[in-house]
Amino acid sequence: MKIAFIGLGIMGRPMAGHLKNAGHAITVLERKSLTAEDRAAFAVAPDGKSATAGADAVIIMVPDTPDVEAVLFGAGGVAEGLKPGTLVIDMSSISPTATKEFAAKIAAKGCDYLDAPVSGGEVGAKQASLTIMVGGSEATFERAKPLFEAMGKNITLVGDTGAGQTCKIANQIIVALTIEAVAEALTFASKAGADPAKVRQAITGGLATSRILELHGERMIKRTFAPGFRIRLHQKDLNLALQAGRELGVALPNTASTQQLFAAVAAAGGADLDHSGLVKALETLAAHPVAPDV
Amino acid sequence: MKIAFIGLGIMGRPMAGHLKNAGHAITVLERKSLTAEDRAAFAVAPDGKSATAGADAVIIMVPDTPDVEAVLFGAGGVAEGLKPGTLVIDMSSISPTATKEFAAKIAAKGCDYLDAPVSGGEVGAKQASLTIMVGGSEATFERAKPLFEAMGKNITLVGDTGAGQTCKIANQIIVALTIEAVAEALTFASKAGADPAKVRQAITGGLATSRILELHGERMIKRTFAPGFRIRLHQKDLNLALQAGRELGVALPNTASTQQLFAAVAAAGGADLDHSGLVKALETLAAHPVAPDV
Repeated sequence: MKIAFIGLGIMGRPMAGHLKNAGHAITVLERKSLTAEDRAAFAVAPDGKSATAGADAVIIMVPDTPDVEAVLFGAGGVAEGLKPGTLVIDMSSISPTATKEFAAKIAAKGCDYLDAPVSGGEVGAKQASLTIMVGGSEATFERAKPLFEAMGKNITLVGDTGAGQTCKIANQIIVALTIEAVAEALTFASKAGADPAKVRQAITGGLATSRILELHGERMIKRTFAPGFRIRLHQKDLNLALQAGRELGVALPNTASTQQLFAAVAAAGGADLDHSGLVKALETLAAHPVAPDV
Repeated sequence: MKIAFIGLGIMGRPMAGHLKNAGHAITVLERKSLTAEDRAAFAVAPDGKSATAGADAVIIMVPDTPDVEAVLFGAGGVAEGLKPGTLVIDMSSISPTATKEFAAKIAAKGCDYLDAPVSGGEVGAKQASLTIMVGGSEATFERAKPLFEAMGKNITLVGDTGAGQTCKIANQIIVALTIEAVAEALTFASKAGADPAKVRQAITGGLATSRILELHGERMIKRTFAPGFRIRLHQKDLNLALQAGRELGVALPNTASTQQLFAAVAAAGGADLDHSGLVKALETLAAHPVAPDV
């Protein structure tokens, strides 16, 4: 396929590379940040309109809702270059309600739209092992499946338009609140005089077992807060959760309090720590660290 | 060993049975609730004092802190029957600070004390697969180990006196807050129009993966709220957490809010639901069920 790939960031660059290696022709946008390798691997177009004009599919991987809106509907944007039948896939993590609006405007041009946010981070993007959560029609999903399979492993059509974004938000709620749970437990245990490493070991294998207890629990004990997934990005995701919750009428009490704890860590200069650094807010409140910083 | 086993409840009865099967001589207290099988398997003493008088070890498995205090120090209690060198093991889930007081009073009589609460529930008790979290000295732990191995599988000396109770509380914090996390995510996803079963499937295997997402997430979707572990018992455990947090100076914001959500489910008549029934409080707040009750 001829693919316009918009957003060559930390995630987007390896994703576009996998598509190229799978035999697709990739066009990217002219940017000062393009490397010599990028220019060798990809065609370069001056704007979204011209990149889209010759493409069978457009893939978008940018930071937030306003970025997707600008890419799609800004001057010289993707929408101006669409011809009927073009497949538009937004793999950014953005608002599910805005997604429905965007999809309706794209559908009005006779094109198909999928929301397909990912999890798995930079490692997953590089290893083509991303989890991809897709919203849209079954037929459009089948059309896009070979592209997804070049970039990810655990690929699920969750439901109609917006359901991919909804699923990603649900994922980020669980991840943040499980980190917070482990952080409360370890802060409590440490200040009570127990060895947090032994506590973690004793409860691993039981009902408290999670990927977060395994990975992020260890980071809290070993004080390895280099990202990983940055607190500022998880703040963005919980902001999407709380905004969507407000629009939909869903109270998310522990998402709200966890967002405040992230804000406290960010206020102390920790916005670029790994999200396991959430524990620092609880440590400050307890005036006691789980373990001394190394 | 000659063992006085005090507390033949849902957990205690199979635990005492495993000790009997491992070759120990068990004495229990006279109660109307004793079955014919109990009377055939165990010796029966009129009170804790006389049960303890002939015993090498005393094991206690009762509901809460005041129950342990009454068993140990009430009139005709265990303390009155202790001779120097007797091993006292409290396997109940109670306050870590009260545990330190009890252990000091037992030590003053020349006896050894372990706190050794368990997780794994009725199934773990019956299958002798309990997780046992132990606080006390290394030497006392080694002395008690054959008894623990008759009842459990994942057995850890977490630290000094009280560390077993601290670890159990840390475990119950993580379990409750992970249930709450899954409940917020599924309530959000369902009201946003996504299929919660597909959301759960899509995120399983990624960073959100946990035993709770697997077991309790399924219960929330399939509406199977028969216990399992009852909300009223998890309320007791979070009460221990919040009391100990207050004594120690540890703020536990999401433990506090989750306890309020349990209170809301209990207020609506759900205290004897499985703890996955926590989702009902969030469903009430969202005026939307994850899935219809069956």
